[in-house]
Amino acid sequence: MSGSSIGRAFRVTTAGESHGPANVVIVDGCPPGIALSVEDLRADLQRRRPGQSRLVSQRQEEDEPEILSGVFEGRTTGTPIAVLVRNTDARSKDYDEIWELYRPGHADYTYDAKYGLRDPRGGGRSSARETVSRVAAGAIAKRVLAEAFGGRVTGYVKQIGDVVAHVEDPSAIDESRVERLPDGTPNLVRCPDPEAAARMVALVDAVRRDLDSIGGVAEVVATGVPAGLGEPVFDRLKADLGKALFSIPAVMGVETGSGFACATMRGSAHNDVFLPARQAPSAGQVPVLATETNRHGGMLGGISSGMPIVMRAAVKPTSSLARPQSSANVRGQAVTLRTKGRHDPCLLPRFVPVAEAMVALVLADHWLRWQGQRGHGRP
Amino acid sequence: MSGSSIGRAFRVTTAGESHGPANVVIVDGCPPGIALSVEDLRADLQRRRPGQSRLVSQRQEEDEPEILSGVFEGRTTGTPIAVLVRNTDARSKDYDEIWELYRPGHADYTYDAKYGLRDPRGGGRSSARETVSRVAAGAIAKRVLAEAFGGRVTGYVKQIGDVVAHVEDPSAIDESRVERLPDGTPNLVRCPDPEAAARMVALVDAVRRDLDSIGGVAEVVATGVPAGLGEPVFDRLKADLGKALFSIPAVMGVETGSGFACATMRGSAHNDVFLPARQAPSAGQVPVLATETNRHGGMLGGISSGMPIVMRAAVKPTSSLARPQSSANVRGQAVTLRTKGRHDPCLLPRFVPVAEAMVALVLADHWLRWQGQRGHGRP
Amino acid sequence: MSGSSIGRAFRVTTAGESHGPANVVIVDGCPPGIALSVEDLRADLQRRRPGQSRLVSQRQEEDEPEILSGVFEGRTTGTPIAVLVRNTDARSKDYDEIWELYRPGHADYTYDAKYGLRDPRGGGRSSARETVSRVAAGAIAKRVLAEAFGGRVTGYVKQIGDVVAHVEDPSAIDESRVERLPDGTPNLVRCPDPEAAARMVALVDAVRRDLDSIGGVAEVVATGVPAGLGEPVFDRLKADLGKALFSIPAVMGVETGSGFACATMRGSAHNDVFLPARQAPSAGQVPVLATETNRHGGMLGGISSGMPIVMRAAVKPTSSLARPQSSANVRGQAVTLRTKGRHDPCLLPRFVPVAEAMVALVLADHWLRWQGQRGHGRP
Amino acid sequence: MSGSSIGRAFRVTTAGESHGPANVVIVDGCPPGIALSVEDLRADLQRRRPGQSRLVSQRQEEDEPEILSGVFEGRTTGTPIAVLVRNTDARSKDYDEIWELYRPGHADYTYDAKYGLRDPRGGGRSSARETVSRVAAGAIAKRVLAEAFGGRVTGYVKQIGDVVAHVEDPSAIDESRVERLPDGTPNLVRCPDPEAAARMVALVDAVRRDLDSIGGVAEVVATGVPAGLGEPVFDRLKADLGKALFSIPAVMGVETGSGFACATMRGSAHNDVFLPARQAPSAGQVPVLATETNRHGGMLGGISSGMPIVMRAAVKPTSSLARPQSSANVRGQAVTLRTKGRHDPCLLPRFVPVAEAMVALVLADHWLRWQGQRGHGRP
Repeated sequence: MSGSSIGRAFRVTTAGESHGPANVVIVDGCPPGIALSVEDLRADLQRRRPGQSRLVSQRQEEDEPEILSGVFEGRTTGTPIAVLVRNTDARSKDYDEIWELYRPGHADYTYDAKYGLRDPRGGGRSSARETVSRVAAGAIAKRVLAEAFGGRVTGYVKQIGDVVAHVEDPSAIDESRVERLPDGTPNLVRCPDPEAAARMVALVDAVRRDLDSIGGVAEVVATGVPAGLGEPVFDRLKADLGKALFSIPAVMGVETGSGFACATMRGSAHNDVFLPARQAPSAGQVPVLATETNRHGGMLGGISSGMPIVMRAAVKPTSSLARPQSSANVRGQAVTLRTKGRHDPCLLPRFVPVAEAMVALVLADHWLRWQGQRGHGRP
Repeated sequence: MSGSSIGRAFRVTTAGESHGPANVVIVDGCPPGIALSVEDLRADLQRRRPGQSRLVSQRQEEDEPEILSGVFEGRTTGTPIAVLVRNTDARSKDYDEIWELYRPGHADYTYDAKYGLRDPRGGGRSSARETVSRVAAGAIAKRVLAEAFGGRVTGYVKQIGDVVAHVEDPSAIDESRVERLPDGTPNLVRCPDPEAAARMVALVDAVRRDLDSIGGVAEVVATGVPAGLGEPVFDRLKADLGKALFSIPAVMGVETGSGFACATMRGSAHNDVFLPARQAPSAGQVPVLATETNRHGGMLGGISSGMPIVMRAAVKPTSSLARPQSSANVRGQAVTLRTKGRHDPCLLPRFVPVAEAMVALVLADHWLRWQGQRGHGRP
Repeated sequence: MSGSSIGRAFRVTTAGESHGPANVVIVDGCPPGIALSVEDLRADLQRRRPGQSRLVSQRQEEDEPEILSGVFEGRTTGTPIAVLVRNTDARSKDYDEIWELYRPGHADYTYDAKYGLRDPRGGGRSSARETVSRVAAGAIAKRVLAEAFGGRVTGYVKQIGDVVAHVEDPSAIDESRVERLPDGTPNLVRCPDPEAAARMVALVDAVRRDLDSIGGVAEVVATGVPAGLGEPVFDRLKADLGKALFSIPAVMGVETGSGFACATMRGSAHNDVFLPARQAPSAGQVPVLATETNRHGGMLGGISSGMPIVMRAAVKPTSSLARPQSSANVRGQAVTLRTKGRHDPCLLPRFVPVAEAMVALVLADHWLRWQGQRGHGRP
Repeated sequence: MSGSSIGRAFRVTTAGESHGPANVVIVDGCPPGIALSVEDLRADLQRRRPGQSRLVSQRQEEDEPEILSGVFEGRTTGTPIAVLVRNTDARSKDYDEIWELYRPGHADYTYDAKYGLRDPRGGGRSSARETVSRVAAGAIAKRVLAEAFGGRVTGYVKQIGDVVAHVEDPSAIDESRVERLPDGTPNLVRCPDPEAAARMVALVDAVRRDLDSIGGVAEVVATGVPAGLGEPVFDRLKADLGKALFSIPAVMGVETGSGFACATMRGSAHNDVFLPARQAPSAGQVPVLATETNRHGGMLGGISSGMPIVMRAAVKPTSSLARPQSSANVRGQAVTLRTKGRHDPCLLPRFVPVAEAMVALVLADHWLRWQGQRGHGRP
């Protein structure tokens, strides 16, 4: 019950702390026969890795995954896939001081309140280090989506501070534009609008020099998803996607489609009109439809509509600051603290692969859940 | 797997369609010995009921609950509590036309895509009629919160269209201000700012006359919640609250605390400072702390901090419109349709008790989950 | 968490007490498009009904089911199916005495120990009255098995006291032999060996006259089940079948295939030899195999083998006796009690449809779970 | 959904194949503050280890566990505990032949039928190698039981072939008698009746010389368990214990208390009489009661009664035989095969720690589940 699993048909369970020996993830329910190698995991793990640029945490981790089970001769066998990632640069010699303190914006106090004790080294289980397991599992989910229906999940940075990217068509962004600038150099902030990207880099650099941090918004788009994924009522696809994104550290808000902008809209302007089908359905079959616009974010009644699925998450500025902050200690006394660890001045660039992973996990889960419930045409 | 259950320790399962014989909900896991009567359910069901004012759907339903099990001599027994609510005003004689059509913004098309068939009467399972079960379960959850730790959940309308309520302190709003205006008359839009409420009423009236609909934002606050509820990683309290709110029909976005506004903030301005404890903790105990501000929305690391829990949900304008709309039918052909049923020009007033119910369910669930995991002080 | 749900893909949740207003069951996950009517439920409910013969409890219940949701125009829609069965002959006027006492073999004491209180009327939730919900759900599961793969589940009484039925081939027994004797009269004990059935009837009559009760063994066979249902490790098909049968009141033991007799056997005598396939498999396909014998009970490695699935359950003698028994009361004092209620001198005849239902539920669940995990031939 | 998790509050998830790099288990939900070290795991792993005597498989595995997470300075933190056990003696060079064949009594055929492919090396996921993870998790569960209520779980061999141990009082057996003979030498068959143990050793030796195998029965007793663990209806304690034992490879039957012997008993002889309490309960409290006899096996209505919990499991003779057997291959053709691998002539001695682990897991799970549901005295 301690909440380290997600998904029902494609079930992901993680374990590991920031400064323990390793992080490990078990993916139970991956269908058999999917081509999968350690290379598939490595790519996304590198995108999430600390130390990849000056804009992110300088902790040095290889993040080299080892597949322990569930794969035989390059194909999944249908049995649980366990992936191990060792922690190598875990500097935890002097955590005595941290153990005494409750850092603002961190989980130190709430873990103590819940458990009566905590592993203080680098934030323990509450550290974003744990997302290494999510990204490994997400890479497996992406393989499932690709083989099952040609699905693809792409994330990018939409906003940092007051710099907002201009994105004409979210479903047209591909990973190359997220990872590289037009000149071929690395896109440090993973924003597909090159002009905004440059301003974001400048902003993050300025914030870093101020010993401060800054928030932002990421957008994730899933394309190629057929109509029919998701459940009525509680396990709506948007609900499970919402939960998945809210489960990432630092997320303060999640939107789909029109999002909070819907509050000021009228129904006549918000409804997305169904277009006539390009071809008539076979007898007893359901037509393949598209809508003219996509304010509904690719889901209606909690079930995918066949249009691109569009999600956004607001990410707060990093709570760890190199500047002094007031707080309280375990005896309830006032203290002043300054975070010494290595941290990201802006979480967004490394947030992107984590958000993609979470979206991919939910889609793989709902795809598999659907297989036992499928209808076979209208009566 | 078809998604009609929520919660793990306090588990709620619903069944029922808009125009079937009844809606029923089973709450499994309610602790024994909680005082509970049908009156406790009736109050919230009346707040959700259609026909309560000119601003909402004119469907006439008594929504009279019957407790079928789990209560003996006015106290819960620890066994499942089933509640039955009959549908009485289900006009479904002529649904043939609807069966042929895919209404914009509704789940007609996605249900067909998923299941190959659907119950077309009033939207079937996708209708918000199903939330009657959630409100009944939520009323039970509220009793649990009250008896377990004096917790209280209060929701209200924060925004309709461009009318935004001014709320000084969300945790100070109580139900009387939401249900009644200062002059004692019913607060038709459930907005605790009387001036904004008047403008919201005028706006909804205008929209209704235009045969249109309008969106908005509701805010839900939980007070009295001790620090310690929630889980690390996937079942973070904010993640489960996010899922619960996203599972309500028409929700397009969910926020906690600073929400999307965090994107433009710096860490030095966003972090909430812990105040010194009012009294030193006993030996080995964790101090009771508060923060100076509550941008974190009452949760840190996914676990409640003891500060008020603040959630917001953006609700789209009703998709059903009495004006003509373009769409497609089951053969993929272009059609024009006009919704004849009884519907709400603005969902927000009746959304409030549903949102409260979902927040209460999640809190009751996490409270119970915590009981087996509690620590007993710092070592 | 209070344990009133079973199944993951075909999920059954029950509520209701012996003497409350009603029992209700929600089946979530039934595939769409299955033909289902109230008649399908009625047949098995009649077989479970008290008052059907002099050998069973004389409580009078119509056990008339009402389908509240999930079925439209005679077909399942894929949404939850709720079934309501009212309790009509619940005589609970004078339960004060019972509330004070802990009956031997009953759950009075353990419920008090767990919950601190209990509904004493007729045993409350611990009464076998609750199995009415299981039988209703089982009837739905049987429809799924029949439509999905022509599967059939048949149970019968194998033993009462020291009378053991001779059954040449368990998979050849059909319901007509269980329900009727060769002369067309009702088979009161549901034993397909007529000679043993007659001796069982005489035994139960004798036991009843002695104000006593007697135990027995039921056997349940599932035929037509293809190879491939079940999971490795914890959710082995035999494990889930074992749990399902052990969840029925009064079951003290469960066997599959050779059962406890395997303890004295050698591997060379126990192994079931695979026979050559009747026809060669297509390229890349797995052959359809049978074994010469079926000591493995139709499951290998926890997965169905294609051979008939054979389960047995040992059922203790009814704990309620009309003769005086020593016990203790809620103050821990010695008392003598005599059960006045209406009870079965032998549980086996009415146990058969309940056991069938539990086996059917598990098979439907595993069938649906499998659909997302299927392989498509050997590489 | 692929079935590699068990438990709800104390949730265990395993991964790993016989000849892959490692087995790994994640225990999620272990309460914080429990003393736990790698030594606690090592003891039971050594009892399960192959190569420990001439009576068991000669595969050489160190089975050295590494705790990867969830423990800090010798105490559990409440976060998931991951344990890694490397496979070191995995000889899988020449599995091509095995891949072609379906061994009798093994899961080769059913895995192919389910998944379309399988990892043939040493049986892959279907190998009992996987139980190494269960034993590691069980050792953690035993620590929880000991700290929570002084509970203890002890298993032993009750029968091998026709040699049945005489055990006066199952609850009086402690591990020393299971592990050592009166003369201090190792008790190779883990039977606490020394005379029977000697005959069992002789029998297993004889069977081994015959290139054959033999079945048996193990008994597991849990003492110190308070009344109140378990749930009504589906998650009865006996149902979850039944499932847990049936989930172990080779189990063909499970009993509790009187077991199958109940079939021939009358209620007047089977009921266990409650004895008066040794001391009167405090006002509003439930008395602590015992029964004169324990035919009910320590559970009534699916909930623990406070008496010792007694379970038995029948284990089939090992399917792998060094003698030739007839079977079929992947093309459905008749073949003769002879198992070359290292296997146990009798599974019982190594089965004991696995059965203990499963019982301990279920008890820890139900203990934790109960904490949110506890009543606080009779009203």
